[in-house]
Amino acid sequence: MIVDGKPERTVARHGPTVVLIDQPALPHRFRHVRCTTVEQTAAAIRRMTVRGAGAIGATAAAGMAQAALLHPDAPLEALEMTATLLRATRPTAQNLFFAVDTVLRAARQAPAAEVVATAVETADALIEADVRACEQIGYHGAALLADGARVATHCNAGWLAFVDWGSALAPIYRARRQGKRLHVWVDETRPRGQGARLTAWELDQERVDHTVIPDGALASLMRSGEVDLVITGADRIAANGDVANKIGTYAVALAARAHEIPFYVAAPRSTVDPATPTGATIPIERRSEDEVRFTWGRADDGTLQRVQTTRSPALNLAFDITPAELITGWITEDGITEEPP
Amino acid sequence: MIVDGKPERTVARHGPTVVLIDQPALPHRFRHVRCTTVEQTAAAIRRMTVRGAGAIGATAAAGMAQAALLHPDAPLEALEMTATLLRATRPTAQNLFFAVDTVLRAARQAPAAEVVATAVETADALIEADVRACEQIGYHGAALLADGARVATHCNAGWLAFVDWGSALAPIYRARRQGKRLHVWVDETRPRGQGARLTAWELDQERVDHTVIPDGALASLMRSGEVDLVITGADRIAANGDVANKIGTYAVALAARAHEIPFYVAAPRSTVDPATPTGATIPIERRSEDEVRFTWGRADDGTLQRVQTTRSPALNLAFDITPAELITGWITEDGITEEPP
Repeated sequence: MIVDGKPERTVARHGPTVVLIDQPALPHRFRHVRCTTVEQTAAAIRRMTVRGAGAIGATAAAGMAQAALLHPDAPLEALEMTATLLRATRPTAQNLFFAVDTVLRAARQAPAAEVVATAVETADALIEADVRACEQIGYHGAALLADGARVATHCNAGWLAFVDWGSALAPIYRARRQGKRLHVWVDETRPRGQGARLTAWELDQERVDHTVIPDGALASLMRSGEVDLVITGADRIAANGDVANKIGTYAVALAARAHEIPFYVAAPRSTVDPATPTGATIPIERRSEDEVRFTWGRADDGTLQRVQTTRSPALNLAFDITPAELITGWITEDGITEEPP
Repeated sequence: MIVDGKPERTVARHGPTVVLIDQPALPHRFRHVRCTTVEQTAAAIRRMTVRGAGAIGATAAAGMAQAALLHPDAPLEALEMTATLLRATRPTAQNLFFAVDTVLRAARQAPAAEVVATAVETADALIEADVRACEQIGYHGAALLADGARVATHCNAGWLAFVDWGSALAPIYRARRQGKRLHVWVDETRPRGQGARLTAWELDQERVDHTVIPDGALASLMRSGEVDLVITGADRIAANGDVANKIGTYAVALAARAHEIPFYVAAPRSTVDPATPTGATIPIERRSEDEVRFTWGRADDGTLQRVQTTRSPALNLAFDITPAELITGWITEDGITEEPP
């Protein structure tokens, strides 16, 4: 993707340094965070400096490469410890576990002299695979978008949630390059506002016509015939096709079903967890109440501040489960399937 | 209701002065606004210093009494002009039109010497009728609430939305006085956050156990069996039972239906508009995009501030329509009906 005229990626490895876009600062400031230790890299995932299924996976992969590069004398031990550290950051995103396990397995199987190189190559290959998978998702998904299509999405499954292109937004970016006119309804996605902050910013950078709406408003736009289809991302896909995604996704899927509007989930195959039979066994991260009670944004004086709207108890489940029967199709790098991928 | 140990009402008339609770300052500051002219009273409705179907109606009634009292030499002319002013403040709430029309009709029919007294008495009677209707709604609705019930509500249809008691919350307050233990899921209700700010504050004052959740989270709580019933208010009820209420209500009703959870609408009969055949003909107020793009709250330094989360275009429809077929029952001062009231 291009930001202010320059090619950008959400996650990059510069030697042993992991460079991330500082997502909580968006859309107000575009800046990078440089993680020079694995602890910093893990903290960036936990604190959601980087967020989004693919970007978390890519950051975890880069963190594993970082561990090997920083500890060339005992890389396997460093990788084992870093794997434990990274697995403890966030419990839901399948891509994180997939990336950590893939690098660790490759390193364990490598000859002692090649552990560092193997870890780095495997991590870099995972990051490149994320880019290629998302690009393919874009080609496949763009076929669903007619000229003039009005697409709804929830949260951010754009390039900020991956390394490049994104999953739910990749078809939109591809269709745009194919000359199609589109309009995107952007759920603001409380409590953290990834739709209002990130998806809207991405679409603005790509010059895609869009409108931010409160999460509760999408159902009535569906009722008045202003939504042609929905595409969301996924943080984990169970073997039966159930999808864990940002809280609020399930409500959107229910509304889409009530209005017979197609509801697609776009995600790389690495999001599928064959070891999880159904959505009921996916662990759902419970985050701080303060994410609901406070809202971050840019104050009139230009500073980033938080304001409190309530002092009452709040519940902050980060994800919900959308059952497979509400999903019209799954868009992966291999194509669009009406059966669980 | 009692606030900090003192009896309170949302709207009161002190001679020709209309006294309102300053709702945008809640929950951070509890203070009153005194409107000494009809222009100030109308502005308080338009700017949502006072909001909520019943409270808007009561404020409009008080504004009509104010007009007559401030212009004893030509009260009918003042009432006609004030009626025009008040009708132009907000387009959706039926109670506003009902109150203005009722006072105007009574004043027109009064002998010239009694126009002022008639307007004042009619306005005061409307305000008292609101209190009594809400109290009755509480008695009827409390019968729906078993000990231990987990109730969801959207927006604020508590006493802040009326003069006292409220509509959707009146059954909860009554059941609480009957010794029942309850838990209320409070939708935060973006964009203006009336759930997080007002409903949560009311419930806290009344010591009712409650949890604030993002609007998108309620559906998944329904799926996990944590919601027994839903009660919302109504800004207008069409002749066929369709309900205009705060944006997001329709999404809640769809989710309730999908999980076979009862969905009740509580409102005084004055909310019913016999001249509106269906929800399709209810005008839906479109408010400023900035209500979506900015969030107001208390900054860490204690001041009320706004923060911006997006610079993109936004759509801010204040209400949506829930069709009668999704409504389990309507709770009015006359009882609970399964047919449109």
